[in-house]
Amino acid sequence: MNQKLFFTALIVLFVLSGIAHFAHWSPIAQFILSALAILFVAGFLGKATESVAHYAGQRLGGFLNATFGNAAELIIAIFLVKEGLFDMVKASLTGAIIGNLLLVLGLSVLLGGLKFKEQKFNIQLASHNSSLMILAVIGLFVPAMFVMNQHFSPEKSELLSLSVAGILIVAYALWLVFSMVTHKNLLSEVEEAAGEHGESPAWSKGRSILFLIVATVMTAFVSEWLVGTLHTFTNEFGFSELFLGAFVIAIVGNAAEHSAAVLLAMKNKIGAAVEIAVGSSLQIALFVAPALVFISLLFGKPMDILFTPIEIAAIAVSVFIATSISKDGSTNWYEGVLLVMVYVILGFAFYFV
Amino acid sequence: MNQKLFFTALIVLFVLSGIAHFAHWSPIAQFILSALAILFVAGFLGKATESVAHYAGQRLGGFLNATFGNAAELIIAIFLVKEGLFDMVKASLTGAIIGNLLLVLGLSVLLGGLKFKEQKFNIQLASHNSSLMILAVIGLFVPAMFVMNQHFSPEKSELLSLSVAGILIVAYALWLVFSMVTHKNLLSEVEEAAGEHGESPAWSKGRSILFLIVATVMTAFVSEWLVGTLHTFTNEFGFSELFLGAFVIAIVGNAAEHSAAVLLAMKNKIGAAVEIAVGSSLQIALFVAPALVFISLLFGKPMDILFTPIEIAAIAVSVFIATSISKDGSTNWYEGVLLVMVYVILGFAFYFV
Amino acid sequence: MNQKLFFTALIVLFVLSGIAHFAHWSPIAQFILSALAILFVAGFLGKATESVAHYAGQRLGGFLNATFGNAAELIIAIFLVKEGLFDMVKASLTGAIIGNLLLVLGLSVLLGGLKFKEQKFNIQLASHNSSLMILAVIGLFVPAMFVMNQHFSPEKSELLSLSVAGILIVAYALWLVFSMVTHKNLLSEVEEAAGEHGESPAWSKGRSILFLIVATVMTAFVSEWLVGTLHTFTNEFGFSELFLGAFVIAIVGNAAEHSAAVLLAMKNKIGAAVEIAVGSSLQIALFVAPALVFISLLFGKPMDILFTPIEIAAIAVSVFIATSISKDGSTNWYEGVLLVMVYVILGFAFYFV
Repeated sequence: MNQKLFFTALIVLFVLSGIAHFAHWSPIAQFILSALAILFVAGFLGKATESVAHYAGQRLGGFLNATFGNAAELIIAIFLVKEGLFDMVKASLTGAIIGNLLLVLGLSVLLGGLKFKEQKFNIQLASHNSSLMILAVIGLFVPAMFVMNQHFSPEKSELLSLSVAGILIVAYALWLVFSMVTHKNLLSEVEEAAGEHGESPAWSKGRSILFLIVATVMTAFVSEWLVGTLHTFTNEFGFSELFLGAFVIAIVGNAAEHSAAVLLAMKNKIGAAVEIAVGSSLQIALFVAPALVFISLLFGKPMDILFTPIEIAAIAVSVFIATSISKDGSTNWYEGVLLVMVYVILGFAFYFV
Repeated sequence: MNQKLFFTALIVLFVLSGIAHFAHWSPIAQFILSALAILFVAGFLGKATESVAHYAGQRLGGFLNATFGNAAELIIAIFLVKEGLFDMVKASLTGAIIGNLLLVLGLSVLLGGLKFKEQKFNIQLASHNSSLMILAVIGLFVPAMFVMNQHFSPEKSELLSLSVAGILIVAYALWLVFSMVTHKNLLSEVEEAAGEHGESPAWSKGRSILFLIVATVMTAFVSEWLVGTLHTFTNEFGFSELFLGAFVIAIVGNAAEHSAAVLLAMKNKIGAAVEIAVGSSLQIALFVAPALVFISLLFGKPMDILFTPIEIAAIAVSVFIATSISKDGSTNWYEGVLLVMVYVILGFAFYFV
Repeated sequence: MNQKLFFTALIVLFVLSGIAHFAHWSPIAQFILSALAILFVAGFLGKATESVAHYAGQRLGGFLNATFGNAAELIIAIFLVKEGLFDMVKASLTGAIIGNLLLVLGLSVLLGGLKFKEQKFNIQLASHNSSLMILAVIGLFVPAMFVMNQHFSPEKSELLSLSVAGILIVAYALWLVFSMVTHKNLLSEVEEAAGEHGESPAWSKGRSILFLIVATVMTAFVSEWLVGTLHTFTNEFGFSELFLGAFVIAIVGNAAEHSAAVLLAMKNKIGAAVEIAVGSSLQIALFVAPALVFISLLFGKPMDILFTPIEIAAIAVSVFIATSISKDGSTNWYEGVLLVMVYVILGFAFYFV
């Protein structure tokens, strides 16, 4: 998209959704405006992160990208935590994970596969990713499973949550060390493609940092406005928090990844598309979710890491099908169909809850 | 088997089981005769389908084979649905899936493996099959899991069943497009072998169509007679519907696949044997089961797609072990032992229920 | 370790822990002494088994090694069964399985990986091992799942336990036939390495047999003393039987495997380390656990094979992550981290139960 147009839309939508919020327009109008605005501020935040990462040098830059790549989701989630909407936080994290693994990956594979008969990517990276995703599933499954079967006291279950959250963050940090320091050649394919879709940065170093700060602040505002409209949907329209969090919030918050991954797949860079989709899921499961457990302590409202059985089931089936499809390092359109089908099945199931 | 002998046995058994039914012979005699008769009418139906498929040309023929390959199971199941024996329908579908994945595949791999030290097959096809089986497991697991955990209203659970059934049928239809149109080279190995085990058709075009109609009608009659005897076993002998459906009905209904797959494996055509066993499971999970959900509407007795936890567990473990064994594209006798062992474990578990 | 030193420590600790037991020293002292003693008697038993196996010739020797490799665990478990401590038996078996798959394998992969950037091993063996582990999980999962969902009578559940135990032992016996008779070339890599870590035997044939008998008797005594101290920990310190069995007993009982596997990995013989860790898990799941079900009949206190949901979950997640990591036939330090992380997560979960 043309830069000028992008910034115009960004500012107009940001201002409009601010007005809608403070002038108490109808909740629907507020929701639509802030949802549109968040598409743009998330895109802006992504570009600013990339640009700062570029100046920070390869290693620190990679770290920044890996850590702030899901900044928008994280900020939205922090506001949800602050409001005590823990169920919606977990639903939106679940939705972000399955949205990336099924919808982002599925559409990339499907649309890429309609153009190219077979698309290949680095099988070793896929294998590592799938082991990490299995760790994530285990990290979410084990505490929930144990607490459900053994009637833990709230204190014990809180301690277990903190322990598991700590372990997942350590695992994520060591993964960054592994993939950026000791075995960074594994990631070469991805960086190369990332280099291409990131273009060379249009902004100076100072401006990039300024933009990163501005974008973060804007994301924070719009997220708060968006979160503020959600109770309308649960109260008046009877949507479940689960469906709203897992499908509406997650799609809005991941729009940037969606378009980037699909575009890469259609340029036959399926490896980079896979990396965006799976990497983003991993980041949410291994970094964002556990970080929120600790962040919730700051608000004095401790959130545990215990997802509901249906959320864990949704994540687990997504990981299984995504792993099964990516394990041979080659994709075709029908594998994209399979992923999207599972997403639709889960969508119906969450909708009817 | 000699053709003449086959037709003699077919007609004698069909007539005898008809007499047994209408003359109200003892239920045991009725059961044995109709079970024997169904072995032959299912074989006849299979041959007629193949023969019609041969004249229909490769593409339409493949479609016919893929869609009517499990016609006998479908017809038996329709009669069970008509009687409202939903539990037995689901048990028999479960039994057909695990019977194909464990017993048919297991015996093929075991007996083939006793003759040949190692048997190899197309790894790409195996990988696709396993992704499809995972979709099938997800399609059965997700609605059951959600409904169990969230106490859906009956209407919602019916809607969810219909949605999931629709998705599975669409996925199956797209799989036919994938495997017969856009990526049909994947299936070359199988078609070649199928050509061999199908021999050139002995019947003319007109006779083939006539035979297909006759075989379908015969299957329908014998199925109804067989189903009519089942209550005796549950009422008088204390067999559970689950065991009866999953092990007795399923073995009888799949006899044709059993012998075909084992014979192919012993000719070192393990790829074709795998395809028969796994393909048949896929067809039941992705086509027969969802189709029955829609067919049940015609009888005014809507059947949902909610399998019991132990049925889903049985299907899931079968898919896991079968996937694990077939993923390296090579088999040996011990892998056949593993499959059969899991079948026996499930058999004991269902028997003691 | 120097042989003389080893035997001195062995005898001193054995005698001390005997004195502690019969003189009713404090339970803590008894526990520490018998735990230390068991490290040495288990090591002694292992060496004696290996030495006898060496004289028995390759085939019978392999069988001895495979069957008595976990003799210490088996003896400890027999004493627990005799005391009727069924929950602790199952916890310790669970602990031995997950300890081997996660801690032994994880530390081997991690420490080996810190020294060598990438370590490779026979992919075919890994594939077989993972199919066998899946059988083990199914064998433990199916009876527990069915009994939980269907309210079996105690007699039926006992019959089901015996049936499944019988099947698992048959599967294990056939695995020995497969891996030592019909397809023994698969194991060549491992035998070669085992030859190296076993050194040529220092003892004569007669002495080896004598030592095997003496070691077995010593193991039996120390095991009984150790088991006798456990109630102190559950009663006075509030440790759960589950944690004690799964983490304390299991680590003590597996110490020999730990050191052997880690040393092999650091010599870049990761294949042999994998085989020790996975082979030991398989032996416990497919031989020790079912054997105990039959042995319990001799004591007139029938133990079923029904593990608790959290034990089965722990075993299942361990198998998943271990399978995922070993399926590509290559390891690096981060994969070791993943395994250890899962072990730590499970450790916390069991601790807080």
